[in-house]
Amino acid sequence: MKTRRSDRLIDMTRYLLERPHTLVPLTFFSQRYESAKSSISEDLAIIRRTFAQRHTGILETVPGAAGGVRYVPIIAATEAQTFISQIAERLSDSERLLPGGYVYLTDLLGTPEVLRQIGRLIATQYIDSSVDAVMTVATKGIPIAQSVSQYLNVPFVIVRRDSKITEGSTVSVNYVSGSSDRVQKMELSKRSLKPGSGVLIVDDFMKGGGTVGGMKSLIEEFDAKLLGVSVFAEGDFNGDRLIDDYTSLLRINQVDSKTKTITAEAGNYLQRNAELLTGLDK
Amino acid sequence: MKTRRSDRLIDMTRYLLERPHTLVPLTFFSQRYESAKSSISEDLAIIRRTFAQRHTGILETVPGAAGGVRYVPIIAATEAQTFISQIAERLSDSERLLPGGYVYLTDLLGTPEVLRQIGRLIATQYIDSSVDAVMTVATKGIPIAQSVSQYLNVPFVIVRRDSKITEGSTVSVNYVSGSSDRVQKMELSKRSLKPGSGVLIVDDFMKGGGTVGGMKSLIEEFDAKLLGVSVFAEGDFNGDRLIDDYTSLLRINQVDSKTKTITAEAGNYLQRNAELLTGLDK
Repeated sequence: MKTRRSDRLIDMTRYLLERPHTLVPLTFFSQRYESAKSSISEDLAIIRRTFAQRHTGILETVPGAAGGVRYVPIIAATEAQTFISQIAERLSDSERLLPGGYVYLTDLLGTPEVLRQIGRLIATQYIDSSVDAVMTVATKGIPIAQSVSQYLNVPFVIVRRDSKITEGSTVSVNYVSGSSDRVQKMELSKRSLKPGSGVLIVDDFMKGGGTVGGMKSLIEEFDAKLLGVSVFAEGDFNGDRLIDDYTSLLRINQVDSKTKTITAEAGNYLQRNAELLTGLDK
Repeated sequence: MKTRRSDRLIDMTRYLLERPHTLVPLTFFSQRYESAKSSISEDLAIIRRTFAQRHTGILETVPGAAGGVRYVPIIAATEAQTFISQIAERLSDSERLLPGGYVYLTDLLGTPEVLRQIGRLIATQYIDSSVDAVMTVATKGIPIAQSVSQYLNVPFVIVRRDSKITEGSTVSVNYVSGSSDRVQKMELSKRSLKPGSGVLIVDDFMKGGGTVGGMKSLIEEFDAKLLGVSVFAEGDFNGDRLIDDYTSLLRINQVDSKTKTITAEAGNYLQRNAELLTGLDK
């Protein structure tokens, strides 16, 4: 059926939001709404303007016969700052202190709106990289990987410390846990990654970087390419960190079980991405 | 700044889609766009009509001073059928056959668009229940729980078979794995669930129902209420299943390692929800 502009704007907005980084040909919309391509172009110009004003994302136009439009989600610098400060404050709550100086994060990593923002923040860093897959290690990295994978619209793969019969053949590597100096094993299903894939590593928490180091070795074993490392929070670590090129949204500086205090602040994300975020804000 | 209708429609659509099941007061939109409530009401009527026509979801209006508008995502019966048939076909691919008669599902449960539809399908069943949390067991149920939790906009909690220091105090139960008759243990962080919470159990695969049975016991231990059980796929099981009230999107009927065939078909989801889905289609 032929549609009114208002109906088209609403449905196109939903359609595009559900398919980030996907090239949608103008003919698709033109057929879907039985409308002229010129009307569709006007609609998209309006959506592009609103998305830019509200910092929802960029609507890229690819000209030519094979062209179309592509929605690239981003986060604005101010929204990123606000989110990170709010989470830092929530992390500093002494109620989160666990025996052994650990900090309880599980509730945050199970809350849809928190995961949504974590996904947007991390994905924004890689809008110009050709990420083919997001990699994480079970269990607590999974929600982050899933959220980032939604915003980049690519699959995520889960590395496991325990072998499962439901994964088929696997490739395994040994790695040294930086904080405990123990040698451990992690593995990934052979079917998970194609050679040459561009891979982004994400995790919930990084201390010595041993787990991330293990994932790097796995990426090499699969002849894939590492495109970046992003963690939700990094902890204080005395010693040489095995990984130095990474971004962290948060940094847990100090955990004092005696005085029951946790000191959490912004990680290096905002600083490392200052130029990118300012550019996107325009 | 005062805004045009077209800009409002685009931004309101995005805003509502990102916050399912959340009551948004009209005054919020009225302030955000510096527009009269009467204009906002007209905007919402247009969005409601488009969402209904395209089976995106229901835009509920709550009248009165504490009222507002609430977006409830649903899936149309035809879209549900199409999705389930497509997945059944993909599951029947003999390449998925693993030693021991297992079926490889990991790629599907790591693909954003598949997870999105699984989440919509399962969440649609509970639009009238007051779900407070989605529960699953690590590892492979997590992506399903996260997707359902997004559509219901409630947290998800992860039950684990191994204890972790980062979870704090836990409550544990023993359960009998229906297919192997072994007694196992599962546990959940004490902080995860409040007494009286309405809980929805989801998992990737159910055979004897032992794992789901364990989660049911945990829900009892937390003095919470079980509102439903939904699995992605159920397998063939000879014997008394421990759980009989559940829905499954798919059913893997037979796995023959000799002839290398997998027989997958629709689970009981469509049949069990026939009335609901037909009602929503109107």
